[in-house]
Amino acid sequence: MAAPKSTRVRRNGQFSDKERAAVYRAIFERRDVREHFLPAPIPDDVLLRILQAAHHAGSVGFMQPWNFIVIREPSTKRAVKDLFLKANGEAAARYQGTRAALYRRLKLEGIEEAPISLCVTCHRQRGGRHVLGRSTVRDTDLYSTCCAIQNLWLAARAEGVGVGWVSILDHEALKQVLGIPRPVKVVAYLCLGYVSEFAPHPDLERAGWRARLPLEQLVYQEQWGAPSGMSEEEG
Amino acid sequence: MAAPKSTRVRRNGQFSDKERAAVYRAIFERRDVREHFLPAPIPDDVLLRILQAAHHAGSVGFMQPWNFIVIREPSTKRAVKDLFLKANGEAAARYQGTRAALYRRLKLEGIEEAPISLCVTCHRQRGGRHVLGRSTVRDTDLYSTCCAIQNLWLAARAEGVGVGWVSILDHEALKQVLGIPRPVKVVAYLCLGYVSEFAPHPDLERAGWRARLPLEQLVYQEQWGAPSGMSEEEG
Repeated sequence: MAAPKSTRVRRNGQFSDKERAAVYRAIFERRDVREHFLPAPIPDDVLLRILQAAHHAGSVGFMQPWNFIVIREPSTKRAVKDLFLKANGEAAARYQGTRAALYRRLKLEGIEEAPISLCVTCHRQRGGRHVLGRSTVRDTDLYSTCCAIQNLWLAARAEGVGVGWVSILDHEALKQVLGIPRPVKVVAYLCLGYVSEFAPHPDLERAGWRARLPLEQLVYQEQWGAPSGMSEEEG
Repeated sequence: MAAPKSTRVRRNGQFSDKERAAVYRAIFERRDVREHFLPAPIPDDVLLRILQAAHHAGSVGFMQPWNFIVIREPSTKRAVKDLFLKANGEAAARYQGTRAALYRRLKLEGIEEAPISLCVTCHRQRGGRHVLGRSTVRDTDLYSTCCAIQNLWLAARAEGVGVGWVSILDHEALKQVLGIPRPVKVVAYLCLGYVSEFAPHPDLERAGWRARLPLEQLVYQEQWGAPSGMSEEEG
């Protein structure tokens, strides 16, 4: 497979203002989508572009530890939905009162509505015994896989495809459903499909579950806890 | 802090062809940068945009578990460089023969050359006792933090800022250097700076350390190991 044309860096490597704005647009308008999925199929060339984006994340030691299982079969989705219902019933029982009521009203997955489910895995032995850069932090292969997922998520947004990450699943049971061998870890189960709209704000923010934290509280200078003095107003 | 203007989704939510191409350009031209850093400082407004991009990743239960420690002090960078030298000496000893010689020739960090080091952490207790969506897969907070890092990496590329992820560090020792408390995990130590060029291909690919895997080998259909039948030529 030839490298995508866009890997050829233009001479000065600069992005125009419009290009830069488009990158930020994808970042700020990306959503974790659980509703508004349309039944229209995702064409193979679009899906391949999105997967190619994932595959072009960096990885520790150039390990490229990811695999992508594309699921379209309703029976498989139903089996995964059953895993969700079981795990979510247990999760809901942890909340009480109004919080429990709010939790039960939230839509937390679109497994059967989205035309494609995508299971993203990390093969922990792909690089052989010694993976460059992984000797001190063993989980950097998982971190690389998450970076690939974010590439996929942003590429999908640019294609008009919504992506929802279903985290409320027993991954060992999911591995049974999909025949995933022992040294391979499930990192994400994603639902992909064109959508009628992208919500203007994250679902949990709109539902009043949690508020967005002010960035300036999250940025320190030199040492943990030391205010950075930066604020968007001044910036 | 007001939400960035670009969070306002345009009515149809569609990206133009040019916008879409810009997103893919950032994805395909992003590099893990260890050399070619320029001493020019990164203005605060540029750094804030890049951090705002990170902060707009999705997070499990809208937990936003990340913090960002911006490091400019040469003495702190020197202390971290010493941690790298120790961990890298141990890592290099794992290779033999020509592989060992190649390993020792690779440049694996730009800690002292890059004007800013950025330590990205994950506060594992931020969301309280029960974080929505995190009951079955405890590490989803780390996964969210990695998604934030990829946002940051792509935004930086669009700004002309190179980012290098230094993974060859003892994170417990790094926490001592930066005063990071116990329930907070270091996810990444990044080096940021404007660069004279972005390499056309990943350093480890160019050096012949490992080759890029063909995407079609990494994509399965319905079950682990079942060929997808998709290929870029047909797509």
